Amino acid sequence: MPQQITFYTAKVCPAGLRVEMALRETKAEYTRYIIDLTAKPEWFSSRVNPVSGKVPAIAYGGPPTAPDDPSPESAKLIESLVLVEFVADLFPSSTIRPKDPVECAQARIFVDAVNTKFLAAYVGASQGGVWEPLWDALDALQKLLTPGKKYAISDEFTNADIAFLTLFAYMEVWLRNDLGAFPPGEGLKGAEYLFGGERFTKLLEYYERLKQRESFKQSFDANLVKEVHIQYYAAARAQFLEAAAAKP
Amino acid sequence: MPQQITFYTAKVCPAGLRVEMALRETKAEYTRYIIDLTAKPEWFSSRVNPVSGKVPAIAYGGPPTAPDDPSPESAKLIESLVLVEFVADLFPSSTIRPKDPVECAQARIFVDAVNTKFLAAYVGASQGGVWEPLWDALDALQKLLTPGKKYAISDEFTNADIAFLTLFAYMEVWLRNDLGAFPPGEGLKGAEYLFGGERFTKLLEYYERLKQRESFKQSFDANLVKEVHIQYYAAARAQFLEAAAAKP
Repeated sequence: MPQQITFYTAKVCPAGLRVEMALRETKAEYTRYIIDLTAKPEWFSSRVNPVSGKVPAIAYGGPPTAPDDPSPESAKLIESLVLVEFVADLFPSSTIRPKDPVECAQARIFVDAVNTKFLAAYVGASQGGVWEPLWDALDALQKLLTPGKKYAISDEFTNADIAFLTLFAYMEVWLRNDLGAFPPGEGLKGAEYLFGGERFTKLLEYYERLKQRESFKQSFDANLVKEVHIQYYAAARAQFLEAAAAKP
Repeated sequence: MPQQITFYTAKVCPAGLRVEMALRETKAEYTRYIIDLTAKPEWFSSRVNPVSGKVPAIAYGGPPTAPDDPSPESAKLIESLVLVEFVADLFPSSTIRPKDPVECAQARIFVDAVNTKFLAAYVGASQGGVWEPLWDALDALQKLLTPGKKYAISDEFTNADIAFLTLFAYMEVWLRNDLGAFPPGEGLKGAEYLFGGERFTKLLEYYERLKQRESFKQSFDANLVKEVHIQYYAAARAQFLEAAAAKP
């Protein structure tokens, strides 16, 4: 029987979304506490995550306390991929980590491809307007999908699917709303290339199935993600518009 | 009962050393095949690791074949950290992954710190002569050690220890032999700072305990690592010496 779980995340945080989905998928009982990243409380950085100060984090076990007064006796755990594995360890009967060692390794290889290649390319595109590595990374993920299966590895929804879905859903928002540190219009062009063409048919069919997952629908708010991205990229957008206006 | 394991690695490869140690720690039966990275066989990139072409890799299961003629029926698995977890999954009674979910998460947090901060700083120092991030990363790892325990997480030797030891032992070789893309003498100065001072006492005591591990002694050949590093850095060293000679 797992002990108390206090889950710290932010209002908008793709890494936190991974952990929230794992908690929902395993039907864990947990307390969610939203950290305001624009005014991060001192107690969070000193008493929950002194290593990096980042969300997501979990305080596990210890006596019951208010989330903003964490007990020194609870274990403080960090890093979204570690936390997803931790939730899987707490609920070994769930399917979010494959039981078969080979499938489990294949899921982790897929997670690694998401978290290295896709994530780096996602940052390169959204914060630098570099597009080719993004399409290459998505193509590589498409090739890793097990043929004929509902989800990435098998017909079960696993940590591989959580890792992909959370990042891809965020990307869909900034692409379709043209929000990023790139010249206006490039996001829409990217969205057209990704969602309008033939290259990613298999990956998009897979994504459509993932989006039906209840744990996702309950955790993901596209409008909120859009709002935060508008604010986040406002300065970069203004710079691009100014540069364009200054052109003869 | 695990199926056949064919382990592909290189003569000198810190990532491969992680997997080899996991295989030895779990007393797995396996066939080791050395890939010559200077003349990588076509069959390896096309039939074992088409994703990245890199070692280490494991071919698991399938009918018995020669390592250089892998069966299409075996599962092909890659990425050193995934492979260590895979070996732990195959041998659940071994101690290389903690049984307790909290300790298991702590081990993975430690592994993550090795594989992101320490690894990036290791590359920055050996290939660019940037030293401060290396000492900071080692300091952060020292702080993550569980006080009063023999190894990083507990009194058991785990995946956390494997991740740290393999990278640190390689570093000791290039530091003490002054081998890297940095001005001659900087490696020796670094070695003196790391091994001769007071800052890393706890970490070095821990390292001394790790080096006693039989699985390490059987897998690590410091002379071979030195030889390969001498060749690898010969051109960089010649450039630095030339530049120094050209100075008025």
